[in-house]
Amino acid sequence: MDFDALFTDALDTLRREGNYRIFAELERAVGAFPQAKSHDANAPDEVTVWCSNDYLGMGQHAEVIAAMCDTAQACGTGAGGTRNISGNTHQHALLEAELADLHGKERALLFTSGYVSNWAALSTLGAKLPDAVILSDEKNHASMIEGIRHSKADKVIWRHNDPADLDRKLAALPVNATKIVAFESVYSMDGDICPMDEILDVAEAHGAMTYLDEVHAVGMYGPRGGGVSEARGLADRITLIEGTLGKAYGVMGGYVSGSAALCDFIRSFASGFIFTTALPPAVAAAARTSIAHLKQSDAERQRQRAQVAKLRARLDSLGIPHLQNDSHIIPVMIKDPVKCRQIADILMQDFGIYVQPINYPTVPKGTERLRFTPGPLHSDADIENLVQALAALWKRCALAHAVA
Amino acid sequence: MDFDALFTDALDTLRREGNYRIFAELERAVGAFPQAKSHDANAPDEVTVWCSNDYLGMGQHAEVIAAMCDTAQACGTGAGGTRNISGNTHQHALLEAELADLHGKERALLFTSGYVSNWAALSTLGAKLPDAVILSDEKNHASMIEGIRHSKADKVIWRHNDPADLDRKLAALPVNATKIVAFESVYSMDGDICPMDEILDVAEAHGAMTYLDEVHAVGMYGPRGGGVSEARGLADRITLIEGTLGKAYGVMGGYVSGSAALCDFIRSFASGFIFTTALPPAVAAAARTSIAHLKQSDAERQRQRAQVAKLRARLDSLGIPHLQNDSHIIPVMIKDPVKCRQIADILMQDFGIYVQPINYPTVPKGTERLRFTPGPLHSDADIENLVQALAALWKRCALAHAVA
Repeated sequence: MDFDALFTDALDTLRREGNYRIFAELERAVGAFPQAKSHDANAPDEVTVWCSNDYLGMGQHAEVIAAMCDTAQACGTGAGGTRNISGNTHQHALLEAELADLHGKERALLFTSGYVSNWAALSTLGAKLPDAVILSDEKNHASMIEGIRHSKADKVIWRHNDPADLDRKLAALPVNATKIVAFESVYSMDGDICPMDEILDVAEAHGAMTYLDEVHAVGMYGPRGGGVSEARGLADRITLIEGTLGKAYGVMGGYVSGSAALCDFIRSFASGFIFTTALPPAVAAAARTSIAHLKQSDAERQRQRAQVAKLRARLDSLGIPHLQNDSHIIPVMIKDPVKCRQIADILMQDFGIYVQPINYPTVPKGTERLRFTPGPLHSDADIENLVQALAALWKRCALAHAVA
Repeated sequence: MDFDALFTDALDTLRREGNYRIFAELERAVGAFPQAKSHDANAPDEVTVWCSNDYLGMGQHAEVIAAMCDTAQACGTGAGGTRNISGNTHQHALLEAELADLHGKERALLFTSGYVSNWAALSTLGAKLPDAVILSDEKNHASMIEGIRHSKADKVIWRHNDPADLDRKLAALPVNATKIVAFESVYSMDGDICPMDEILDVAEAHGAMTYLDEVHAVGMYGPRGGGVSEARGLADRITLIEGTLGKAYGVMGGYVSGSAALCDFIRSFASGFIFTTALPPAVAAAARTSIAHLKQSDAERQRQRAQVAKLRARLDSLGIPHLQNDSHIIPVMIKDPVKCRQIADILMQDFGIYVQPINYPTVPKGTERLRFTPGPLHSDADIENLVQALAALWKRCALAHAVA
């Protein structure tokens, strides 16, 4: 059988649809971010990154870098085993304590990524709890969808951010079912924030467990960076808060936090936790330093909010349409995969502005977009360069007709 | 509903069976490994680690540490995004080229862990190829089993390391099925090595794709550390070779290697690749340095083999039974979860020897064991301390009756 022909056919279909992904090859330089060196032949040598999830620039914070290097020099570069078999270190224990404190929970449990934390936790809860039914917001992230699918538990999709629909769907379930309501605080592609209070009211009324993904919110919202659940004073009503160390905290890894029994249960039964090498202690130390910094420093969040507001205001003043939301994410809708790629290419090649086109399967077909994430390190000049480039492009391509 | 009560009940069952896992909390010190500081109250302050998968001690190699620190200082601590959305860096490209070269393949593709590489690659191949049937060795790792399960492809289990059984099972399949033979080179819990040549003969005779997990072999076997497939000159006959950066290479991460079309296919369709933050460039740089070192240096492998042979010979001379195999893994069978934990506890508390008891679900119930992995940094004195401790324990507990 000619396997390569099978692969090539599938890839050709992606190309025809405009959904074939081409990665930009970057090289960041500490101190220069959001400027980065480009290794792509058809891009300027230096570009400005406008689509990073290192939302606060913590990935190049001096203390965070020092923590990684000091720990690598003291303890080495890897954990050397699973958490159970020689890979559990003091740095993991310290980081889990820091995370539990962040969310005001008894315990936290680390995973190698946010993807794995969602996949492993939801698949374990769904598979192991008796008569489990997972009620999943229709816009939940791929990692949650795959975890729910893997659990083989019954799954009910509720309308995005609609507590009334959730209420109806919970009411239709058997009283004895173990109900798990899974949702996110900040939805990363539209940037909208859930009505958390109302969702919790509904879940509590039906005796459901709540599973909240805060990956785009931890470090960013709440006085200590505890996420939207902290900002709204709701963390103690949520059974499990999931987060990442790879976005606002600038490193890598994921986690869940909750009661000691909940974390111990997932620790003891989740295949994706048990059978994988632990995070390097140096990564754990860097993440802990970043979390601790953002617990006591609000400067990065304030500056980011200011830059987000400035970019929104400038887009408005130039008539460039963008999705309204209460978060830090600014989506400019293009609604066509080929055009989305073309505009991104022109921004990169002609203006040195790097924003990745967001196409299927990251967003539904027909909702392709550019997604801008201004951070505290974007200067006012960076913002002005961006909006002038977009304005020039909008004129050049008469894009107003193509967008909402 | 009292969720904590559900969790606690399940945990209590584990405890009753002797399968509740207690993690040892270690702190390695560069230069001292396999000695490590213990943070556990009931262990000596310093212990000797005998169960690490940092098989060659590369996690504390000066060049590898320097690569991590230099890159963190130059580029920061995280990638800041998925490979598609701003997280693809020059360090990822360099590492993938190094890995492709390691296995003599056109391309390689990085994942955040070996677990994710198996899970994501197998689930994508099984789900996306027409009429896929995955033929899985019965002792394949949990990550492969979960990937196959997630794919929803038809699955056929063949008898462990038995090419004749594989042949029969392939012959029973429809001619038009896309057949994928999934197996490992070194099985980590028994330490046995597959009859690779015969398995490939059978797979080729039936036109099947071959998927080989080399996570316990890369860096360790073959003149350049390309694994058992390199050592036996068989790499070019294998469709996909999967490996890890978290064991012999001493860092973290996983990968697959194969044709350009195969890697591009997985890159383009695997949820577990697409929707997750990329490895930190500093981690990628450290891994690449480790791979490059072990391509040209055989000293670590030679010294490891010598220490493995010494430990085996000393166990034999003292009458301590262990599984025979051709690898670097020395399992001492205990066959009872409670005894296995007790012996490990005594070794730790009385002798400062850390070997994690290997219980269910890592191994089947009734095959509980201690699993020793001697490395190039274990001294002859370390070996002598270990065998004397085991001999003392064997006498004390009259264990000879309990073991095979």
